[in-house]
Amino acid sequence: MGEKSAQRLAFFFLSLSPEEVEGFSNELIRTRKAIRYCSQCYNIAISDLCHICADPSRDPGSLCVVADPRDIFSLEKAAVFKGHYHVLGGLISPLDGIHPELLRLRELVDRLKNKAFSEVILAINPTVEGDATILYLEKLLAPLQVKVSRLAYGLPMGADIEYTDELTLQKAFQGRVSTP
Amino acid sequence: MGEKSAQRLAFFFLSLSPEEVEGFSNELIRTRKAIRYCSQCYNIAISDLCHICADPSRDPGSLCVVADPRDIFSLEKAAVFKGHYHVLGGLISPLDGIHPELLRLRELVDRLKNKAFSEVILAINPTVEGDATILYLEKLLAPLQVKVSRLAYGLPMGADIEYTDELTLQKAFQGRVSTP
Repeated sequence: MGEKSAQRLAFFFLSLSPEEVEGFSNELIRTRKAIRYCSQCYNIAISDLCHICADPSRDPGSLCVVADPRDIFSLEKAAVFKGHYHVLGGLISPLDGIHPELLRLRELVDRLKNKAFSEVILAINPTVEGDATILYLEKLLAPLQVKVSRLAYGLPMGADIEYTDELTLQKAFQGRVSTP
Repeated sequence: MGEKSAQRLAFFFLSLSPEEVEGFSNELIRTRKAIRYCSQCYNIAISDLCHICADPSRDPGSLCVVADPRDIFSLEKAAVFKGHYHVLGGLISPLDGIHPELLRLRELVDRLKNKAFSEVILAINPTVEGDATILYLEKLLAPLQVKVSRLAYGLPMGADIEYTDELTLQKAFQGRVSTP
């Protein structure tokens, strides 16, 4: 959290009465204790399975691999995917000491071996660490013969080409799509 | 230009001597007078043809349609396209009074009729106005039987899925690409 946000939060707490702060703090402690990781996908959960893994209306044949539970929140808000998730717990970044062994890759391979998925979608940030992780995942998953895809790279919606960075323009050109 | 930029610019001019401001202003007048539109693509130019149309090393079979000459600057900086351009001079926006007749669409159709292009790439902003213009162009160019494509929409390079807007996530999902 940045200095500005910290200051804003400090003043918010100052505006509460000591009793309100105590109530808030106790609720915070309680909620934090109740949160654990889903035993299947490693999303945050309040039971053994998270609300997505426990939802029978979700498509059981489609798996979306993300780095972090926060990515699930964003994707769910976009309401673009109706299948199941798998949280890696980070992205490969040797400089930060995050090696493949630290990610939930064995768990991913086990899931794919135990259950047939029609598609594995890698919803991984288009960054150096994300690219390294996608590359690693491609090799790791190749023997499993499952269809693997990654999110499209290109212009974000509402973008202005004039102000779009060069790398994004290059990817948008390379990935251009035939119009109907 | 926003208020901040205007203020910065004002202080910059204050930092110059009156003679320097006069020199700058005269150069500005001279340059502005020298600039015209390319007779072929409507990019800004200092002769009849712009430096791109006049360049024999450019691929004459590939045409990139943009709204504004500023888009050409960004695309050239990204060095992603080696063909020719066509500047529409804006995007369709009925609310702003910009109707198709105001854009250089007849000139585009004439170019395509007079010369065989293997591909027309629509490098148009993914906005409401851009979408309307792409739709219009698709219909306009359909009878010409030329291959038409648009730039890819998706995650901008370096993006963080957690902070990416919902519409962009939807487009990135819809446009997902099989990994090798």
